[in-house]
Amino acid sequence: MLRTHTCGELRLQHAGQAVALCGWVQTIRDKGGILWIDLRDRYGVTQLILEEGVARPELFEQARQFGREFVLRAEGKVAERAAKNDKIPTGDVEIRVERLEVLNSAKVPPFTIEDNTDGGEDLRMKYRYLDLRRSPVRRSLELRHRMAQQTRAYLDGQHFIEVETPVLIKSTPEGARDFVVPSRMNPGEFYALPQSPQTFKQLLMVSGFDRYFQIVKCFRDEDLRADRQPEFTQIDCEMSFITQEDILNTFEGLVKHLFRTVKGIEIADLPRMSYADAMKYYGIDKPDTRFEMRFTELKHHSTNLPSQETVVDLVSGKNFPVFEDAELVVGIAAKGCAEYTRKQLDELTEFVKRPQIGAKGLVYVRCNADGTIKSSVDKFYGEAELRGWAQAMGAGPGDLLLILAGEANKTRKALAELRLEMGERLGLRDKSKYSCLWVLDFPLLEYDEEAGRWFAMHHPFTSPKPEDIALLDAGSLGAVRANAYDMVINGVEVGGGSIRIYNRDLQEKMFGILGFSREEARRQFGFLMEAFEYGAPPHGGIAFGFDRLCSLFGGADSIRDFIAFPKNNAGRDVMIDTPATISDEQLKELHVRVATEGKK
Amino acid sequence: MLRTHTCGELRLQHAGQAVALCGWVQTIRDKGGILWIDLRDRYGVTQLILEEGVARPELFEQARQFGREFVLRAEGKVAERAAKNDKIPTGDVEIRVERLEVLNSAKVPPFTIEDNTDGGEDLRMKYRYLDLRRSPVRRSLELRHRMAQQTRAYLDGQHFIEVETPVLIKSTPEGARDFVVPSRMNPGEFYALPQSPQTFKQLLMVSGFDRYFQIVKCFRDEDLRADRQPEFTQIDCEMSFITQEDILNTFEGLVKHLFRTVKGIEIADLPRMSYADAMKYYGIDKPDTRFEMRFTELKHHSTNLPSQETVVDLVSGKNFPVFEDAELVVGIAAKGCAEYTRKQLDELTEFVKRPQIGAKGLVYVRCNADGTIKSSVDKFYGEAELRGWAQAMGAGPGDLLLILAGEANKTRKALAELRLEMGERLGLRDKSKYSCLWVLDFPLLEYDEEAGRWFAMHHPFTSPKPEDIALLDAGSLGAVRANAYDMVINGVEVGGGSIRIYNRDLQEKMFGILGFSREEARRQFGFLMEAFEYGAPPHGGIAFGFDRLCSLFGGADSIRDFIAFPKNNAGRDVMIDTPATISDEQLKELHVRVATEGKK
Repeated sequence: MLRTHTCGELRLQHAGQAVALCGWVQTIRDKGGILWIDLRDRYGVTQLILEEGVARPELFEQARQFGREFVLRAEGKVAERAAKNDKIPTGDVEIRVERLEVLNSAKVPPFTIEDNTDGGEDLRMKYRYLDLRRSPVRRSLELRHRMAQQTRAYLDGQHFIEVETPVLIKSTPEGARDFVVPSRMNPGEFYALPQSPQTFKQLLMVSGFDRYFQIVKCFRDEDLRADRQPEFTQIDCEMSFITQEDILNTFEGLVKHLFRTVKGIEIADLPRMSYADAMKYYGIDKPDTRFEMRFTELKHHSTNLPSQETVVDLVSGKNFPVFEDAELVVGIAAKGCAEYTRKQLDELTEFVKRPQIGAKGLVYVRCNADGTIKSSVDKFYGEAELRGWAQAMGAGPGDLLLILAGEANKTRKALAELRLEMGERLGLRDKSKYSCLWVLDFPLLEYDEEAGRWFAMHHPFTSPKPEDIALLDAGSLGAVRANAYDMVINGVEVGGGSIRIYNRDLQEKMFGILGFSREEARRQFGFLMEAFEYGAPPHGGIAFGFDRLCSLFGGADSIRDFIAFPKNNAGRDVMIDTPATISDEQLKELHVRVATEGKK
Repeated sequence: MLRTHTCGELRLQHAGQAVALCGWVQTIRDKGGILWIDLRDRYGVTQLILEEGVARPELFEQARQFGREFVLRAEGKVAERAAKNDKIPTGDVEIRVERLEVLNSAKVPPFTIEDNTDGGEDLRMKYRYLDLRRSPVRRSLELRHRMAQQTRAYLDGQHFIEVETPVLIKSTPEGARDFVVPSRMNPGEFYALPQSPQTFKQLLMVSGFDRYFQIVKCFRDEDLRADRQPEFTQIDCEMSFITQEDILNTFEGLVKHLFRTVKGIEIADLPRMSYADAMKYYGIDKPDTRFEMRFTELKHHSTNLPSQETVVDLVSGKNFPVFEDAELVVGIAAKGCAEYTRKQLDELTEFVKRPQIGAKGLVYVRCNADGTIKSSVDKFYGEAELRGWAQAMGAGPGDLLLILAGEANKTRKALAELRLEMGERLGLRDKSKYSCLWVLDFPLLEYDEEAGRWFAMHHPFTSPKPEDIALLDAGSLGAVRANAYDMVINGVEVGGGSIRIYNRDLQEKMFGILGFSREEARRQFGFLMEAFEYGAPPHGGIAFGFDRLCSLFGGADSIRDFIAFPKNNAGRDVMIDTPATISDEQLKELHVRVATEGKK
């Protein structure tokens, strides 16, 4: 090794020891008679000191030529610092330099290598190798490393076997768009990159592998919204001879293990919520349960969702047309917000009227601290009605009721957004707090009005609940629930899975419902259906979005800094400048031609 | 769980316990009054028993309908067997069945699910999910799992950080052919799949990550020779602030750790051999050192290879034209083979004359046990000369000398093959024995006569030995040695790496030598050369072929059973039937057209 220690390692106990350190120049301070260099590596920063009368003069000469990010090797003795720095672990000591070697020089970096850099996103991505030198980014990737090691340690301990499934597979029309790879050896034919190893892990179950996992790259050629990547990583798992309960317990165990070993946090058993309740009480299938603020329905004319409660209508008959015409009137109580100013209330109204939220307006009721009650619909509703609403919503003096009305699904979706906005405003979405839950009993199918057909809500291999098979047979497709589950943390779906179909007939029926012709189903998934005829065990599994899980553990909003070399929203790696054109010779060998129709 | 235990778990100590097992029917033996079922899962086989008068009659009825590979759930009590089977760990017990449930039926499999199957390669690959049920294949993948976990445990313990590098990267003309991926969002442009994460891991060193590893899929679009796969897995590693010595010690440590933890074998420190010595004494850069049988040069006119010994000419001046004209006369002594029959010697002659070996003929000398000596060149050489050869080759009574002559490189290559063949015939290549070594000091460059230019022997990022830079500058390109090293186990190159260039000027010079124009070098590798200007540390690394390493640990010749879903020699996955055609719509979206010129 060119060094005896790292830049994060030396303490007072090392005083007097001769050491050699390697690292990058973080800062140089030259006070004439004394010159300090902060030397940085992955492990920390250690102060080097050159003192007039102590260090040889030529060392000063040499050190004055150094710039930021020069790579140095320094030899010297560890000494106690006169002025200690208790902000860094090495702050008690410095190195009295006896020898300095420049391992490499550095041009002035295009942005500062500091925790808070002056580099914009584009510049940081172009010089990602410099951005990765910054502590927050480095720490994010170190966290990811620990997450990966601990994931494997847990699953290995549970007798899961890690199996690598192929990357060059077959394109399937269901789901998102595939990336494809022309085959040189098979002219006119293509491989596809996997959107997930779904069929392979099911085949591994047919093979008897019984407990499989993989931390695996997957690929989706989608138009990239913010924080989506064309290649992403999953913790992919599958188990045989299990019930849904076994999967929930096993992977609840994984997440507890990760919180314990990576974050030092003991989390409680995960609550479970049905999809129906999640929609009813939070308006979304991935509720952020760090805070309550549940929905209260003041009127509900739809019977789409099963509910054990009798719906009370507290709003009809008062000639308020918005509520009269509404399928659903639903609200939340924001604790302690009765004193919101007109301006604040206007902001909230503007918020819900934004096109991406789509509400027509917002009704509010102030439950003032002095016991009075005041609403934006005083013209239609008297104090008795308003107090009735407040009571239904569990609101007391000082609280603010926020109520939306309209078509049920849209209104729920809008109120879910408003709830999150209120949580944000009230500081209830603390990134250092974690609230995990299971959402269960998803619908098996959802109808796409535009495409005019049913789609699998999870994927075509998900099994209906046995007790709902009769509904499936009766054609009540929308009412059939699946043995499907999502793990939700802080309002983010971090993982999802299902108990699978393992019977050829049911799988064929499912493909039929999804609009596959028999021939199509066989061409695409014949191998899987055939496999089901040779002794397929009952099985199910789950996949976690690893990038997202890491960013959540890291308390970050974006996944980008948890990926070493991410792509931008146009799917480009601006550092290596790809995608790029390839040679005509290459294209010819691959039996393809570019057809850009003058766009290039 | 549907089971209380696995099929590999129950012992005498469980006798009397009520259990539930799940698994596949391996065999059924029906003796009328007694019926046995061997139930198999990933963990083993357990015997189920149904006895007349004990089990209910309807159980017999039911069990008689079962076929091989049916998936069962059996409940019953563990009992001591009357006739124990000491060949399996569960052989002391059986399950007295009280309840049987068919979880799934099975068609008769297309080949037997036994250790030695009757299925040919093609059938096994088409039904790979059934092939994977066979114990040898399952054990191979279990071994791979342990290898992966232990690799990570060791490297994590050495402070290596696992970083995922991108799969969608940029095509480069150097090296093998790339697989490419058309970009929908960037018409006419393509990603490429990585042949290795080489440039990314070097950038991670520039970023200060200092110790990186990854177990990672890589891709090469090559014409597949036997036992090559278009996608393969590497253990990829890189370190900063190190010398070659540090890399050798660190990764020698990895291999020792793997042998210890996976195989229970303590291996000795790895011997080191220069490339020059490997070529001189074994004729190959990856010698199988499980056995000695080193080359002895009887005449060597070339001075291509540095050698500390004076070459003795023991063959010239006797008018034997083959030796007179030869650049190199070189032989091996096969211990105890003096009594080889004429037929055996003819076989060896035929062996070396095969076109892929290419020798013109074989000279032999029998050092008979009775002290006489006899050769195929008695016409030209007397007993004194022959005894001189035998002495030079360290041969004694009972040994056989095998000698080849001709152009130095070709002759060495041919004798290397003959040496391996003799090792095979003499049983010296025991798959359960392991002999590891480092081969060092590879040439930096090799000249390709056909292409008329120099190629990097390792890759363009490998650094020349500092003491050989003068040779590089003087244009003696063939004499320049690299800081490059291979790890060889049993004649297989399992890993290789180098200390890298980390200086822009030297890297540009290297690209120049390799025939890149300045502009090409910048377009392809500008980001790396630019990175070198921002403070690149000295660094180096290594990559291990993980598939091959696993097969070596598994004592197998082929890597295929150490890959869950391998492709055949035409790059096809015959199970899922890919590559395959894709829709015109898909092609159009990707801005490409198939151009098979009537081949399709």
